[in-house]
Amino acid sequence: MPRRRVDASLTGVNPATTLDDLAERLPAGALITDPIKLEAYRRDRAEDPDAGTPLAVVRATCTADVQEVLRFASATRTPVVPRGAGTSLSGGSTAVDGAITLSLEQMREITVDPVTRIATAQPGAFNAEVKDAAAVHGLWYPPDPASYTFCSIGGNIATNAGGLCCVKYGVTVDYVMGMEVVLADGRAVRLGGPRIKDVAGLPLTKLFVGSEGTLGIITEVTLRLIPAQRRPQTLVATFPTLGAATAAVLAITSSMRPSMLEFMDAPTINAVEDETRMGLDRTAAAMLIVQSDEPVEHAGVEIAEVTRLCEEAGATEVFSTDDPDDGEAFVAARRLAIPAVEKKGTILLEDVGVPIPALGDLVEGIAAISDRHDVIVAVLAHAGDGNTHPLVVFDPTDDAQRDRAHTAYGEIMDLAVGLGGTITGEHGVGRLKRPWLDGYLGDDVMELNHRVKDAFDPHGILNPGAMLLSAEQRETALTRRGR
Amino acid sequence: MPRRRVDASLTGVNPATTLDDLAERLPAGALITDPIKLEAYRRDRAEDPDAGTPLAVVRATCTADVQEVLRFASATRTPVVPRGAGTSLSGGSTAVDGAITLSLEQMREITVDPVTRIATAQPGAFNAEVKDAAAVHGLWYPPDPASYTFCSIGGNIATNAGGLCCVKYGVTVDYVMGMEVVLADGRAVRLGGPRIKDVAGLPLTKLFVGSEGTLGIITEVTLRLIPAQRRPQTLVATFPTLGAATAAVLAITSSMRPSMLEFMDAPTINAVEDETRMGLDRTAAAMLIVQSDEPVEHAGVEIAEVTRLCEEAGATEVFSTDDPDDGEAFVAARRLAIPAVEKKGTILLEDVGVPIPALGDLVEGIAAISDRHDVIVAVLAHAGDGNTHPLVVFDPTDDAQRDRAHTAYGEIMDLAVGLGGTITGEHGVGRLKRPWLDGYLGDDVMELNHRVKDAFDPHGILNPGAMLLSAEQRETALTRRGR
Repeated sequence: MPRRRVDASLTGVNPATTLDDLAERLPAGALITDPIKLEAYRRDRAEDPDAGTPLAVVRATCTADVQEVLRFASATRTPVVPRGAGTSLSGGSTAVDGAITLSLEQMREITVDPVTRIATAQPGAFNAEVKDAAAVHGLWYPPDPASYTFCSIGGNIATNAGGLCCVKYGVTVDYVMGMEVVLADGRAVRLGGPRIKDVAGLPLTKLFVGSEGTLGIITEVTLRLIPAQRRPQTLVATFPTLGAATAAVLAITSSMRPSMLEFMDAPTINAVEDETRMGLDRTAAAMLIVQSDEPVEHAGVEIAEVTRLCEEAGATEVFSTDDPDDGEAFVAARRLAIPAVEKKGTILLEDVGVPIPALGDLVEGIAAISDRHDVIVAVLAHAGDGNTHPLVVFDPTDDAQRDRAHTAYGEIMDLAVGLGGTITGEHGVGRLKRPWLDGYLGDDVMELNHRVKDAFDPHGILNPGAMLLSAEQRETALTRRGR
Repeated sequence: MPRRRVDASLTGVNPATTLDDLAERLPAGALITDPIKLEAYRRDRAEDPDAGTPLAVVRATCTADVQEVLRFASATRTPVVPRGAGTSLSGGSTAVDGAITLSLEQMREITVDPVTRIATAQPGAFNAEVKDAAAVHGLWYPPDPASYTFCSIGGNIATNAGGLCCVKYGVTVDYVMGMEVVLADGRAVRLGGPRIKDVAGLPLTKLFVGSEGTLGIITEVTLRLIPAQRRPQTLVATFPTLGAATAAVLAITSSMRPSMLEFMDAPTINAVEDETRMGLDRTAAAMLIVQSDEPVEHAGVEIAEVTRLCEEAGATEVFSTDDPDDGEAFVAARRLAIPAVEKKGTILLEDVGVPIPALGDLVEGIAAISDRHDVIVAVLAHAGDGNTHPLVVFDPTDDAQRDRAHTAYGEIMDLAVGLGGTITGEHGVGRLKRPWLDGYLGDDVMELNHRVKDAFDPHGILNPGAMLLSAEQRETALTRRGR
């Protein structure tokens, strides 16, 4: 008999109340308590030095497994940290002492329905695998975080991930039509579905996109697909000043919709050139990579217009190509930027965003912070979205420099918020940025966040401490304020 | 001194606790209790025969007015029904006995920032006014409900309104970046803002889009704009059978993204032809209107491909034009469909949607329901979205026919749900469709809806009875079930 996939009714079924009992209800080997094996699940890509140690890791194989874990967790008030591919840059899946880390890495099925033009995926499937499955049918799942070859679609949805193509094609939330979610008490519910328009009831599907595992565990998603992207034409422009480059960005975004509009500053260009020796201009203050995926004649018109706008803004050099391989080389260089900068030292990866007109002030302000604290900050940006990734680089053996780097990291968020921007554009708040969320949202909106959290997770067992203070942390904070 | 726009802090300010006191805190004439004047605010376009009579109508002029009303409402537990232009087709703003109807019709300011490419609008502004304000800067706000010349943007957001261009450009939620909301207790908060990517905190902005006034009162919205649409090319095809037309729809949607893909059946074609005498084929079982707004050469390619697909599916006649005026005549005919059918009798306007592959079964099932109950059902559809508007026509003086029409109306929703579809694609649940919501969503998802509702509106004063049962109705329902 095939393993039951979803435990629709919970009536009359008692939850496991001990880890041993829970282990027996799960497939053999799914529940891990071996300390050596647990170690691999303590940290995600944010490498949080304060990561805890899980009580256990469960590698779920199906929705029913997730339900068993949540029912156990609810009954015993055991916190649960959901984890996809562990690529969070904000510590969204950092382990918590005494919590179960619930890994979805084995739930990786994908099916594509080309007529309805949807993909149905389990949360552990990689973004690239969804793209590949769609491509078989001439279809495309656009969102493309830089980590798309190794990040999970469940994590993408938990953080409302973005990427390079978002400037024209939108972010993850624009592609999520429905999902199956296991609630804190172990019930599995379906939200939305393969209906392009559906306004029946509160839009709970959208509420889950970007909820960082704090409201429920996503066990399946229904994604909208669109026809395959046309082969893009590519332009690369270098600029003598940051101001000239950001002026070009504004000129472009106010008149057209390129399918890519990326920015790299001098430290980033040099780090990439160190790796690739592809001949990038090391003396440039900034570089833009722009693509148009319009039909071929019109793409030529768009790229010509971008050329004109870059030259008007003072570009030193503008190069364009309709050869997809030549173009892809520049995109690959851009995708290489983070690993290239990482070779220079340990990095704190920022993700601040501002309204487009403030992009120049943000980039120049970051340069000033870099100078003031004498740390390298390499800036790359999804410029067309106003979303930047300053990489604060420090020598991990130099304590003073580490401290200056952390100060710069915080000041960059303060700068962005002061410019009407956000502390995180696409990586999520996780545990790393939580201390800055209150200041950004303010007390009233924070209270709404907590009210919604409490409505879904009354016992505070879901990913405690990610995005929002855990119940214990809130208690402490309230006590400190004299309630 | 200019009138204070937002009452940021509520500390130390006592709310009004009588209508007289409330009236004094509002601009002269803003609070209306004259029964003759109230009459105009009892019903919206759904013409609910069970509409109540408001305790009072307040015509707010600014956010601070809305705050005064909500503070009064919270203090006195007075329900509040928000109302934009009163064009709800689901009774979303039907008056409730003893409630204040809070009209936003005077809050109509719009500003456009062409560099950030956003519009900031007050809720009472018409959709068409937002489009016009954007067009001044060569920009476009796509969502285009059929009522766009007289429906309010606040209502569009409350219902996550759709329209004709959504097949390519998405629905309202895809364009809402932020908003100001007055909460049940009178606090005004800002959610989101002019940041293309922003994942800091739970995505409450998206939660409000489609919440039908049940979570708070939207007093300002920030909308994303895109460059102006290119002049479209248009194709009209007629089909001898419903099946041939829906087969053509599937062939088109699975291979391309037209900017419009509309469907009309024989009763609709004939009603429109009665009005326009434009020479539509009265013998056709169905007609499709398709547009492509790709760059001119490519639009020609797309329209040629649609021609081929329609012919393959068995189209009787296919006509295409790149003359925008000729094309617009057909779009105008489509927009005229509802008023044209309304000339045939009183209508019950449906809004069911299904996954695209089920469109044929839905349309043919509706024809069978029409036959079975001997009532005319004219079907028009945003076919590319699987979203249909069956218009059930009846003679209001014929009680038996009216009953049969209501039976057919319910059966159409049951049919759609049975096909994996929704009871409402873009009009909202309102009061008319509320009895069908529980069956569609199921008990678990309904409970989540109520939990979220309670988190925002603990006293149940916001638009009670719209979308969700009011607190009283819930109490009664629970008592009836023996709790």
